[in-house]
Amino acid sequence: MESPVLSYLREVHAELAQLHDGAPYSVGPASAEADPADFGIALATVDGHIYEVGTTRTDFSIQSISKPLSYGLAIADLGMAAVDAHVDVEPSGDPFNEISTSPETGRPANAMINAGAIAVASLIKGSGGRSPIQRIENTYSEFAARRIRSNGHEYRAERARSDRNHGLAYLLSSVGIIEGDPTKALETYLRQCAVRVDCRDLAMIAATLAAGGTNPVTGTEVLPYEAVERVLSVMMTSGMYDDAGDWATNVGMPAKSGVGGGIIAVLPGQVGLAVYSPPLDKHGNSVRGAAACRRISSDLQMHFVRAARVGRSAIRSTHTVDQEPSNIRRTEEAAKVLEEHGRRALVLDLTGDLFFAGTETVVRALNSIDDEIDFIVLDVRDVDEVGEVGTRMLGAVIDDLVASRRRILLVDPEGMLAGVNQDSYTVFDSHDRAIAHCERLIIERYGTQASLPQSVPVATSPVLAPLSAEDAERLTARMVPRHCSDGEVIRRVGQRFGGVFFIVAGAISIIASHTDGTRFRLRTLGAGMSFGELALGEDDRQETTAKAEGPVELMVLDAEAIEELEQEDPALAVQLWRALSRDAYLRVDRLSRANAARIRE
Amino acid sequence: MESPVLSYLREVHAELAQLHDGAPYSVGPASAEADPADFGIALATVDGHIYEVGTTRTDFSIQSISKPLSYGLAIADLGMAAVDAHVDVEPSGDPFNEISTSPETGRPANAMINAGAIAVASLIKGSGGRSPIQRIENTYSEFAARRIRSNGHEYRAERARSDRNHGLAYLLSSVGIIEGDPTKALETYLRQCAVRVDCRDLAMIAATLAAGGTNPVTGTEVLPYEAVERVLSVMMTSGMYDDAGDWATNVGMPAKSGVGGGIIAVLPGQVGLAVYSPPLDKHGNSVRGAAACRRISSDLQMHFVRAARVGRSAIRSTHTVDQEPSNIRRTEEAAKVLEEHGRRALVLDLTGDLFFAGTETVVRALNSIDDEIDFIVLDVRDVDEVGEVGTRMLGAVIDDLVASRRRILLVDPEGMLAGVNQDSYTVFDSHDRAIAHCERLIIERYGTQASLPQSVPVATSPVLAPLSAEDAERLTARMVPRHCSDGEVIRRVGQRFGGVFFIVAGAISIIASHTDGTRFRLRTLGAGMSFGELALGEDDRQETTAKAEGPVELMVLDAEAIEELEQEDPALAVQLWRALSRDAYLRVDRLSRANAARIRE
Repeated sequence: MESPVLSYLREVHAELAQLHDGAPYSVGPASAEADPADFGIALATVDGHIYEVGTTRTDFSIQSISKPLSYGLAIADLGMAAVDAHVDVEPSGDPFNEISTSPETGRPANAMINAGAIAVASLIKGSGGRSPIQRIENTYSEFAARRIRSNGHEYRAERARSDRNHGLAYLLSSVGIIEGDPTKALETYLRQCAVRVDCRDLAMIAATLAAGGTNPVTGTEVLPYEAVERVLSVMMTSGMYDDAGDWATNVGMPAKSGVGGGIIAVLPGQVGLAVYSPPLDKHGNSVRGAAACRRISSDLQMHFVRAARVGRSAIRSTHTVDQEPSNIRRTEEAAKVLEEHGRRALVLDLTGDLFFAGTETVVRALNSIDDEIDFIVLDVRDVDEVGEVGTRMLGAVIDDLVASRRRILLVDPEGMLAGVNQDSYTVFDSHDRAIAHCERLIIERYGTQASLPQSVPVATSPVLAPLSAEDAERLTARMVPRHCSDGEVIRRVGQRFGGVFFIVAGAISIIASHTDGTRFRLRTLGAGMSFGELALGEDDRQETTAKAEGPVELMVLDAEAIEELEQEDPALAVQLWRALSRDAYLRVDRLSRANAARIRE
Repeated sequence: MESPVLSYLREVHAELAQLHDGAPYSVGPASAEADPADFGIALATVDGHIYEVGTTRTDFSIQSISKPLSYGLAIADLGMAAVDAHVDVEPSGDPFNEISTSPETGRPANAMINAGAIAVASLIKGSGGRSPIQRIENTYSEFAARRIRSNGHEYRAERARSDRNHGLAYLLSSVGIIEGDPTKALETYLRQCAVRVDCRDLAMIAATLAAGGTNPVTGTEVLPYEAVERVLSVMMTSGMYDDAGDWATNVGMPAKSGVGGGIIAVLPGQVGLAVYSPPLDKHGNSVRGAAACRRISSDLQMHFVRAARVGRSAIRSTHTVDQEPSNIRRTEEAAKVLEEHGRRALVLDLTGDLFFAGTETVVRALNSIDDEIDFIVLDVRDVDEVGEVGTRMLGAVIDDLVASRRRILLVDPEGMLAGVNQDSYTVFDSHDRAIAHCERLIIERYGTQASLPQSVPVATSPVLAPLSAEDAERLTARMVPRHCSDGEVIRRVGQRFGGVFFIVAGAISIIASHTDGTRFRLRTLGAGMSFGELALGEDDRQETTAKAEGPVELMVLDAEAIEELEQEDPALAVQLWRALSRDAYLRVDRLSRANAARIRE
């Protein structure tokens, strides 16, 4: 089915195709062919997806849409200050071909009027064996993600009627704004105006500006961010000639038009829009192009006021560790410590952007935490972007927390907060590992030796607790000891029920597979716990893999021993199964609670 | 500890206090007292939190900062078109007291220059027994969340030297822009300029504009959103007099200054900034104020290009129902159906904003789903904001999906998508309920009668499946039937182990409590399942409440019956406990998998 975005653009296109005002710009052989009926709309997202309707693959001259691109190139080449010395950033309020130079400095008011653009062209030097216009063509091609070139016929036709621009170039030279040969600067300018593009190219150019200067399809950094910020600022106040105020008010996007019939409009961070339709209004803007920008900006809410980030809290959720525990099975003792002291560890899941507004909410929350909080887990995996301001402000508040003896655990696999003083916190690559570590810290601080036991004799294991000491000994007599070394696989998926394995010392990972075959750690078991019983659940088959983490001592009551027990001593067998059921129920209860806490009401 | 935001503002304040350029505006008795050393910075968030440093509680005259506020009031009163007929939106590039009227229409270039502001003042009429200036004072007070008033001494001092403004008023009258008495309009304008505010008031005024016209502290809608959008657009291009281009480029925020020494700058959606310092530069802007705005915008990345929403995917995660099942315990048969067909139900968790860019990613994903998907769960609970464009585009794609025979389930307790055609989907107030319903739809479509049984004789219940038919019958003989009516509580927290309860027909809710005492549904059980065994887990005490949902038929093997069984027939007791263990293990396995899927790596 057709995308609603495309359907929408089709609707706008059909409606505005009815506009028949204006006349195409005409100067030479190529543009003489411009068909007043041509009308294309292309919209490119910052991830490089393009929606196109109408005449989007027909070439035309880029004309003044070249101005912001070359302005950006000059800034990238020379830096802001050097360019600012030659051209100002003030809106002129005048038509595009006005002189509009400052009586004091001789600087053209901005780089979007002809005088400013000629001054900019004079600043672009050849390099690496390439002439200025070749470098310009290269940059424009990187913007468009396609090889685009200046057209010689078009250039010569423009040159033949460029008296006014000649005059501007010489005037700029007379006040020292153009330092070299004014004719060369003019020629570069006229050649850049004659670069042939289609509407799709313009959308990609606009999307590259929207993406901060990096082409969303090729990933090439065409311009540095600072240059793009400047280019878009000037387009905002001065991109649409003497119609700039109306445009800023009613479209609210940085934009640039060309007399070739093209217009680009940029929604920073989001979208590049391009329209092509040759008939022009009295300001020199495409009639259908301006109408389409106005309509699309309003319908799609692209005005800069509406499109601003909303300053909402960057805290998605806050909870303590006892409310969402890790998937590590603890001893009874340790579980009790966590139940009682888990509230001392605060988990903050952050989301959105850590620019000023988002960071301010986090900083405000961290600045007012309870005295009883010892540990803070900051999970920034869902944070989309961190500004310098975020790094700086979070760094300050983290340092304050550390100074007041709080431990900070950061879940940050992508290094979003890499700029923050790394001595102040411990970094984890997964949420689960950070919570597991945090639980361990709580148990170490608030538990006893028994909470994290090194070794538990099988007769005293919690699973067998309901049995009398005598019954436990009788059962132990039927077990065999087994030693496993690090990494040894003790139970494998698909094996038949092999008995009950009691962990005397060491740790066991229980590993399961997703339906797509990828494996994941279901849980970690320690001394005093048991495994293997679950094979009784599903068709008597082992559903998971049990693997030793470091050296492990086991006591095994194997399947035959259990069968013998059931035959020889059914009363003790009842005790065993009842104890195993009890243990399983305890786990069902803990797991359902953890699950219910995670299932989002 | 001090907030890093405040520390930062303190640092900026200390540094810029060293600037000693400029001289205060001086006209009358009140402002004559303005101390050149006064310097305050206040920053207000859109949730109403204010950070203040320096001289933020000293009154001064609002002066030209009144212009955007009255412009907004006039638009709210008369509508955009009526106001546009009297004042344009073009930057003048001229000083504030220039005439700058259009030779064709006589309209002042914009409402930020004196001529435009006087024209606007003429449009504000008295109403409800209030004079124009009283209505203006009321509006300003709503902006500031504090009663603020015009100062008579100040007004008279200004009036005594207002020849140029008198001239402007009469010129506007001569071309029909002011329709009533030009002196009255001038007086209203001069009185509004003499409203006394402090720096904190200005921050709140700016935050109200940032929040789209609603005061963040009082919640009062001071201006409609459309008026604010217009006001901020004009402030962007024309707020800083002839310094507008430099401001748009280097500060990049809509702003307005007054000769009283105040400046406001607005970061739409996020922050209102105000600075007060009387010494002015040649443009009439506060020297320290302009420097502070420049510095803070750069440090806190508030430039409109940087502050734009980033067009990122609104899809936080995608999975199928089998990957994250509900917490309903199913029969074996139903569980198999869900394992096999759960992939036919796609769950999309959305996040962020559904404006164009975010919605486009959702629409693109929904437009290209697999043919085998029958059901789509859209969870919009974490969506922050939905634009009209989001409603329209999602509506279109949902209609398409329904036309291609997909069922849509929407998790939308707050009615974020209430604008979308409600016949196209079913709405749920919780994620879990939507998933549960979706599972039921899958079982109905792909399962058999046995998947959702109405009634299951206890001897054929899945729990007892490992027993021979004969053993099952012998066990059944020891049970007693029990009928429960809707809402009846069968097991209560704290009761001792009371035996095993087999559900023959009907449904049971298992309810647990959070540590804070709030209750939540752990799971729902149906015919063929059992409960009560878990009491064996924790100290033989019932940890949850079991409640009948509608009429329920049970078979109960009570605690005494089990004790008797263990004495009289230990071999059958082994069978029972082994079966119960197996069932428990099956549940442990399912739950740990569901849990591990939810625990975020």
